[in-house]
Amino acid sequence: MNLKFRAQDVRGIFNIMPTPATENAARWDCEDSVDYEESARIVNMLIDNHVDAILTNGTFGEGASLTETEWRKFNQTVISTANGRVPVFSGATTLNTRDTISRSREMMAMGATGLFLGRPMWQEMDEDAIIGFYSDIAEALPDAPIIVYDNPEAFKGKLTPKMYGRLAKIPNIVASKYISVGPQYLADVEAAGDNIVIMPLDSDWYFAWKWAPKKAPAIWTGSGNCGMAPLLALKHAIEVGDDALARTITFEIRDAYKTLFPRGNFHEFSIYNVQLEKTRFNASGLVKVGPSRPPYNRISEDIAQGAVIAGQKYAALQKKYAGN
Amino acid sequence: MNLKFRAQDVRGIFNIMPTPATENAARWDCEDSVDYEESARIVNMLIDNHVDAILTNGTFGEGASLTETEWRKFNQTVISTANGRVPVFSGATTLNTRDTISRSREMMAMGATGLFLGRPMWQEMDEDAIIGFYSDIAEALPDAPIIVYDNPEAFKGKLTPKMYGRLAKIPNIVASKYISVGPQYLADVEAAGDNIVIMPLDSDWYFAWKWAPKKAPAIWTGSGNCGMAPLLALKHAIEVGDDALARTITFEIRDAYKTLFPRGNFHEFSIYNVQLEKTRFNASGLVKVGPSRPPYNRISEDIAQGAVIAGQKYAALQKKYAGN
Amino acid sequence: MNLKFRAQDVRGIFNIMPTPATENAARWDCEDSVDYEESARIVNMLIDNHVDAILTNGTFGEGASLTETEWRKFNQTVISTANGRVPVFSGATTLNTRDTISRSREMMAMGATGLFLGRPMWQEMDEDAIIGFYSDIAEALPDAPIIVYDNPEAFKGKLTPKMYGRLAKIPNIVASKYISVGPQYLADVEAAGDNIVIMPLDSDWYFAWKWAPKKAPAIWTGSGNCGMAPLLALKHAIEVGDDALARTITFEIRDAYKTLFPRGNFHEFSIYNVQLEKTRFNASGLVKVGPSRPPYNRISEDIAQGAVIAGQKYAALQKKYAGN
Amino acid sequence: MNLKFRAQDVRGIFNIMPTPATENAARWDCEDSVDYEESARIVNMLIDNHVDAILTNGTFGEGASLTETEWRKFNQTVISTANGRVPVFSGATTLNTRDTISRSREMMAMGATGLFLGRPMWQEMDEDAIIGFYSDIAEALPDAPIIVYDNPEAFKGKLTPKMYGRLAKIPNIVASKYISVGPQYLADVEAAGDNIVIMPLDSDWYFAWKWAPKKAPAIWTGSGNCGMAPLLALKHAIEVGDDALARTITFEIRDAYKTLFPRGNFHEFSIYNVQLEKTRFNASGLVKVGPSRPPYNRISEDIAQGAVIAGQKYAALQKKYAGN
Repeated sequence: MNLKFRAQDVRGIFNIMPTPATENAARWDCEDSVDYEESARIVNMLIDNHVDAILTNGTFGEGASLTETEWRKFNQTVISTANGRVPVFSGATTLNTRDTISRSREMMAMGATGLFLGRPMWQEMDEDAIIGFYSDIAEALPDAPIIVYDNPEAFKGKLTPKMYGRLAKIPNIVASKYISVGPQYLADVEAAGDNIVIMPLDSDWYFAWKWAPKKAPAIWTGSGNCGMAPLLALKHAIEVGDDALARTITFEIRDAYKTLFPRGNFHEFSIYNVQLEKTRFNASGLVKVGPSRPPYNRISEDIAQGAVIAGQKYAALQKKYAGN
Repeated sequence: MNLKFRAQDVRGIFNIMPTPATENAARWDCEDSVDYEESARIVNMLIDNHVDAILTNGTFGEGASLTETEWRKFNQTVISTANGRVPVFSGATTLNTRDTISRSREMMAMGATGLFLGRPMWQEMDEDAIIGFYSDIAEALPDAPIIVYDNPEAFKGKLTPKMYGRLAKIPNIVASKYISVGPQYLADVEAAGDNIVIMPLDSDWYFAWKWAPKKAPAIWTGSGNCGMAPLLALKHAIEVGDDALARTITFEIRDAYKTLFPRGNFHEFSIYNVQLEKTRFNASGLVKVGPSRPPYNRISEDIAQGAVIAGQKYAALQKKYAGN
Repeated sequence: MNLKFRAQDVRGIFNIMPTPATENAARWDCEDSVDYEESARIVNMLIDNHVDAILTNGTFGEGASLTETEWRKFNQTVISTANGRVPVFSGATTLNTRDTISRSREMMAMGATGLFLGRPMWQEMDEDAIIGFYSDIAEALPDAPIIVYDNPEAFKGKLTPKMYGRLAKIPNIVASKYISVGPQYLADVEAAGDNIVIMPLDSDWYFAWKWAPKKAPAIWTGSGNCGMAPLLALKHAIEVGDDALARTITFEIRDAYKTLFPRGNFHEFSIYNVQLEKTRFNASGLVKVGPSRPPYNRISEDIAQGAVIAGQKYAALQKKYAGN
Repeated sequence: MNLKFRAQDVRGIFNIMPTPATENAARWDCEDSVDYEESARIVNMLIDNHVDAILTNGTFGEGASLTETEWRKFNQTVISTANGRVPVFSGATTLNTRDTISRSREMMAMGATGLFLGRPMWQEMDEDAIIGFYSDIAEALPDAPIIVYDNPEAFKGKLTPKMYGRLAKIPNIVASKYISVGPQYLADVEAAGDNIVIMPLDSDWYFAWKWAPKKAPAIWTGSGNCGMAPLLALKHAIEVGDDALARTITFEIRDAYKTLFPRGNFHEFSIYNVQLEKTRFNASGLVKVGPSRPPYNRISEDIAQGAVIAGQKYAALQKKYAGN
């Protein structure tokens, strides 16, 4: 095995891209729903503003609702636009092992740095099934670095410390997109050891760093799509150890997030994850990601309104930290 | 709209087929995992033994873990073998609306009687999303009869009476595969009205019939794969109103099921649904459905053992009612 | 052991009384909150209208929120008013085994026929704890017939078939107040055998009877406080085997209940059980049960409104079946 | 109002006492189950070893399973032994508002510094009910400082930031026994403001302090019953800002806790909270708290074993930090 990207390379801001959509993308009869031009423009915008890595096709990246053809062309656009300037981890979560393997092979052949992989979710998976799934992928793609995507709502359960301990023995796995820094975080970090970097969300970075300073070199976020400036300021503050500034920015980011979660609730958010994040991105003003694709194309006005406010609040932060 | 199969045609035993697998089907590098010969043989066996309809590719029918090519060839085999002798409802549940539409169109063009459709499950769907999803399918395939597949574990939530009321206004929807006859059943039946036949599981048929005699003309089952005889005997007893006999057979079937559910628990069962049902079918001795496909290819010996016993117990019933 | 009331005596309508309250009973500084006169009047009304047994101090009977003195005087009133005309089962659910035993002894000495006992609910109890609890009570009161009160929301979990099997070996236990006739009902009935009568709610009686005709001789209800007539009509219809009439009355009763459950949800109902039932009883017009006692003395207008409608609808049924 | 103990007085180690039991305390026929001598000895031991405050009768303090007489005499013993040397907060959680008020008045008259109060738990309480409950208590006892006891398993739900905001307006409430420092912690702290000190568990102190240094002046614990030395060392390390030492001690304490939670699970722990904590205390060797009282007097050997190990591990820490 000869991984070109390892756990020690997981540093900084790993931003997940949305998949920009054409105007008619919410319709069932839309045939090619991707706005490729805007896709390329976002990649360039992220790189020009010092993103550390780009991920595609998680939940709000609509891994679930693109056709296979769209998915292929979209990732091709991202990979070729990035053109090696930053690592690209392509999302290839599907309903089963073999489809994920064949899609993963395509992505690696196309030049992706690595893979961003959630697990199949028709059946909830127990520990052996989860480890078996990632082991199969690793066996099929021995040279592909993998970022594990854990999302308890999407994939019916949260990885446990014991699972992290077993995943850490699969050499391909370099990082994990993590859901929230709470009671289980330290046990997960301990179990993951040096082989897997657990990446918290932007608004949890400071708190993870306070608890385990050496274990929080990187985060995942979608906020970069609303502007990289606050994230860069936070990253810098943490790197130089400016506790007060890191704390201030963190509370600003948390304040901007507040209305994104209906009734302050992650479960509720998960019912509208795609719709809410795309609404937030559009409201921030930097990107035009279009409507959500079916079946996740419906949302009530009042729930969407929280995402609009979140986008506008973040835009204000972006203005503040971009210095313009 | 010109449906060839309507709610009033939903009568009798709707058996869901497994997708027979080759010996190496549990491996990630298996390329064509379907045993087409056995698939055809099972279709013939079911028809010869008076099944009323055949459904494919629900959960244990491995809708999730077939490649698209396998799924196409398998359904082609089923449809062409059935050759119009009984209705065939092809499963086309995918991760999104457009994939389900394109697969559904293929199936209808191939000669399927109708569709057997669960909903996308990456995000939990709210009422509007569920109704919107089925409405989109119906708009795209105005001539396709649809059996709704409701499975609270697989699809993250149970349909409510209010949803049944709205689904009943979509003319394509003729039936619903129902999970368990309990407190909500009568409200669902009332909401569904005459437009949707709510189909309980074989072991609940008698109980649904006792509660609402005119509303229980049909069931879904996988037990037909272990032998049609007990089901035919039950069907006959209910048709002629032989309460005592229907009750006796029902308790025999329930007894055979008992060990299929780990700790008597549906949630636990759902973590191993595919593995358990395929194990049961194999243990019954009438079919050779092979191993389960990844990622649902792992199960502990002791949990599997309950399914073996369930299959053996059903086989004894089959022997008793087949009179041989 | 010499039980004066056995499982075979559990027949008919077991109505749970509310604990009528004085006008200031919702205040924390109320010292004697019981309206004893109305309490006696309700006992007489129930007996005059052919109730089969009276139970006190479950959830809506405010077993939780009476002071010990009030509880004692209230039960004294009920027992002495009944004066042997119908069996009285006194509620003595407390936070622990010894308090329940000492209260139970008081009640039996006072002339109660038996006890109506939920389990302590500070900690959720596992199987051994539940069986141990009832065994201790039985050992302490060998001559006291016990009706087990199972309420999954109040007592943090539902009795399982296995527990019923073990409870059935404790001779004192003669019946169980049961929550809802669904998938687990038949297994519970089977496990309970002939030693414990599982009593469904009034609106489930017909359905329990259809499933297990010999196993449904009795029900529990609070509806008797709104009028015994519909219940007597239902009882008669079931006794003479008039299926159509029993079904009609059942659907009328279910229709009357409909708005009692906020959003159709038992969990939600349980947050306001006391308040909702007392509101329903008051709205029915036959009894004056006053306000709810603290801390269960608050409820929003719109949730309470559903209970008002439920009471009014039942009152109409009462009028219809009382023939006046 | 004239509170003698205010939020600003909440500093240091608030240790919850068990209620030592006589040898026959697990039996239903035990009449006075309290070991008063050991109770007094533990109070002295805690004070001699610099505990900052003593709390009684939460969950493992068997607030639920003492008779009222035992509860009175036990608190009398604790209060008179403490004799003003440290504040004593007496537990008076009952099934309703009025019982809690009358018990609270007794305790204050007896010389308790304040009250340690969970909420009634027969019905789950919504926001208005919870605020109403504590408001009623505060109105009845205007001079009594109150520590709110929040325990999501015992009291069916976790306090929300919005509730903390409303509780903070009730002047009597000075602190809250908090369950776990996770995603909601900072919002709770912010909502509680300066009026309520949110007290984490000992093993979370360091982490709360890292996140909100000025908001973590005090903790609750039962570990003091196994020895005060590690807690004093931790307290000192945090006071002088010795991050590395505080961290080391914290991880030692966490390691000692590890086996206390069956399958690492708080829900599971809650089913045996009393039994597990008393087993841990006994195993630590410093106290003799006897068996658990019914109905919480049963536990399987293997689950109890985890608590024995936890007690032994803590004893080793005590030895290390006590320097003997």
